Amino acid sequence: MDSHIPSPPTRRLSMGERENAIDRTIPLLPPAEEIDEFNYFDNNDPPEYLESLIHGAQEFVKFHKNDRVVLVTSGGTTVPLENQTVRFIDNFSAGTRGATSAEYFLEHGYAVIFLHRQFSLLPYSRHYSHSTNCFLDFMEEKNSKVIVDPIYQEEMLMVLRKYQHAKDHNLLLLLPFTTINQYLHTLRALSVTLRPLKSRALFYLAAAVSDFFVPLHRIPEHKIQSKAGGSKLVMNLDPVPKFLHRLVDKWAPGAMIVSFKLETDSSILLSKARQALERYSHQLVVGNLLQTRKREVVFVEPGKTELWIRLTPAQEAAGVDIESLIIPAIVERHDIWINKSKNSA
Amino acid sequence: MDSHIPSPPTRRLSMGERENAIDRTIPLLPPAEEIDEFNYFDNNDPPEYLESLIHGAQEFVKFHKNDRVVLVTSGGTTVPLENQTVRFIDNFSAGTRGATSAEYFLEHGYAVIFLHRQFSLLPYSRHYSHSTNCFLDFMEEKNSKVIVDPIYQEEMLMVLRKYQHAKDHNLLLLLPFTTINQYLHTLRALSVTLRPLKSRALFYLAAAVSDFFVPLHRIPEHKIQSKAGGSKLVMNLDPVPKFLHRLVDKWAPGAMIVSFKLETDSSILLSKARQALERYSHQLVVGNLLQTRKREVVFVEPGKTELWIRLTPAQEAAGVDIESLIIPAIVERHDIWINKSKNSA
Repeated sequence: MDSHIPSPPTRRLSMGERENAIDRTIPLLPPAEEIDEFNYFDNNDPPEYLESLIHGAQEFVKFHKNDRVVLVTSGGTTVPLENQTVRFIDNFSAGTRGATSAEYFLEHGYAVIFLHRQFSLLPYSRHYSHSTNCFLDFMEEKNSKVIVDPIYQEEMLMVLRKYQHAKDHNLLLLLPFTTINQYLHTLRALSVTLRPLKSRALFYLAAAVSDFFVPLHRIPEHKIQSKAGGSKLVMNLDPVPKFLHRLVDKWAPGAMIVSFKLETDSSILLSKARQALERYSHQLVVGNLLQTRKREVVFVEPGKTELWIRLTPAQEAAGVDIESLIIPAIVERHDIWINKSKNSA
Repeated sequence: MDSHIPSPPTRRLSMGERENAIDRTIPLLPPAEEIDEFNYFDNNDPPEYLESLIHGAQEFVKFHKNDRVVLVTSGGTTVPLENQTVRFIDNFSAGTRGATSAEYFLEHGYAVIFLHRQFSLLPYSRHYSHSTNCFLDFMEEKNSKVIVDPIYQEEMLMVLRKYQHAKDHNLLLLLPFTTINQYLHTLRALSVTLRPLKSRALFYLAAAVSDFFVPLHRIPEHKIQSKAGGSKLVMNLDPVPKFLHRLVDKWAPGAMIVSFKLETDSSILLSKARQALERYSHQLVVGNLLQTRKREVVFVEPGKTELWIRLTPAQEAAGVDIESLIIPAIVERHDIWINKSKNSA
């Protein structure tokens, strides 16, 4: 049962190779107008299940009408390249950040709506899935019964108790998505659902959202055929409309909004984060690099110097989740946000 | 804990929309030569972990030198679009066919090398993962211990016993891949490793392998930047070299080879399957449609009429795996293949 974990290719490209980098047309289209976002929702139908999903969310929000509710988005959105989807473009994300963060929000007394990529990591069960161990490796047979291997008893009991507490008190609502279209429609509808909570609603947008998509009218119905002898495939993708501005302005005015910025090039991380903040006028961008995202992130906020949050080497060695530092820092900012809203009301 | 499962978009495109289907250049390149496949391996480095992975496989094959060994490939390969991969093209596949088939091969006395997409479904554990249920939903607390919910005891015991049997008798080797490059290099190396078994080796190629990829020299080092206001993204992909011919001819001569053909358009399934068989001169193509793959497949073999294998409505209602019909039919053909090889030796 040995299992080696493949690591992504690490070879760096030479300067010459970089110049051969992926082709991109540069016919700069006019900057996106608000109308683009309306157009998106007009031209791309909502998923059929949306209504019943939102009904569940409404019940949840009603139940928590006096509580703080965080919407955590998690995992990568897919961009289907075919109508009956065999192939799609995906974003790297197991959902670790979102699933772990949800647990710490629950510990801080929040009710959590967990909008996640289907089959990505979930709060609590993440401890036993997507590992190199098979779930059955935690179990053994004794007197013709399956029992939990005593080695894992204590830890699993702690996890199970927290999970049961969240279930018993209706504190965790799991809502899935797969495609970028499902994600955008669901996010919009949930934002409206959360509106009555005003400043007690928190958006924690950790999902890896596609920047490009294939508009519905250009998606072929059937699997793209490969030709013997090798014709090339050329794909034209459109930019996904930037929805954060609408979220701040219209969908959920009053809520506190935290977005994430993931980069691989450290030299542009801060400027990209600052740019997002200026463009959308929301409250916080959490910047992180793919390579170091499990041990450091940076908070970028309007009118403040950036704040790095880092695990100490000792914390790292002990396997401390960096989310155990991120969430309290966000909750602190949410306290201030709520108080400010009260005072201005 | 309600969880609605998003279904893929079902809207069918109109004729007009279909004509607007995805752009593809049609500059027909010369048909792929054998040299293309050599070129591929020369120009795309093997993953760093390959040597140690193959060492494990060699030990496994030595251990089973008098047994039948099947290499089951499972799950979809990814095509990285960036060097430090944030985005990639993926193929739809949870790995159900491969993981389920592996279990039935084990029941038929085969040793199984399971070459699978990392985090796709695994034999036995598949019964408890990628479900809408969280794994913790199978557990409960009793006297301060985590126990298996009595409702699931009996079934889980059966699954655990089979899993333990495979582990205790060294019958199942789990080897992961993620990218198309890792897959191709590993498949080639495993084929050579299996060569000593001659006709007792069986290749069951159920993985969803990308048809197109971005050659290493064209992959940008960093995350592709989206531009404010929306420039489009144009991607150029090359065809993946067809490797089946080499597998049959050079890498594993003597082995029996089964490949899969997945389509969404029923009108071309049989011709595509027959074409693959003629092109590669192997023993069996299992054709299936995305829409009906869990209840019917078609065997396409040289010089024979196609054979449909279908679940009866009663079997379907009872949740019978179609792999419980597919595997015995393949084992039967493998018996004949081994006998033929003996007689001609």
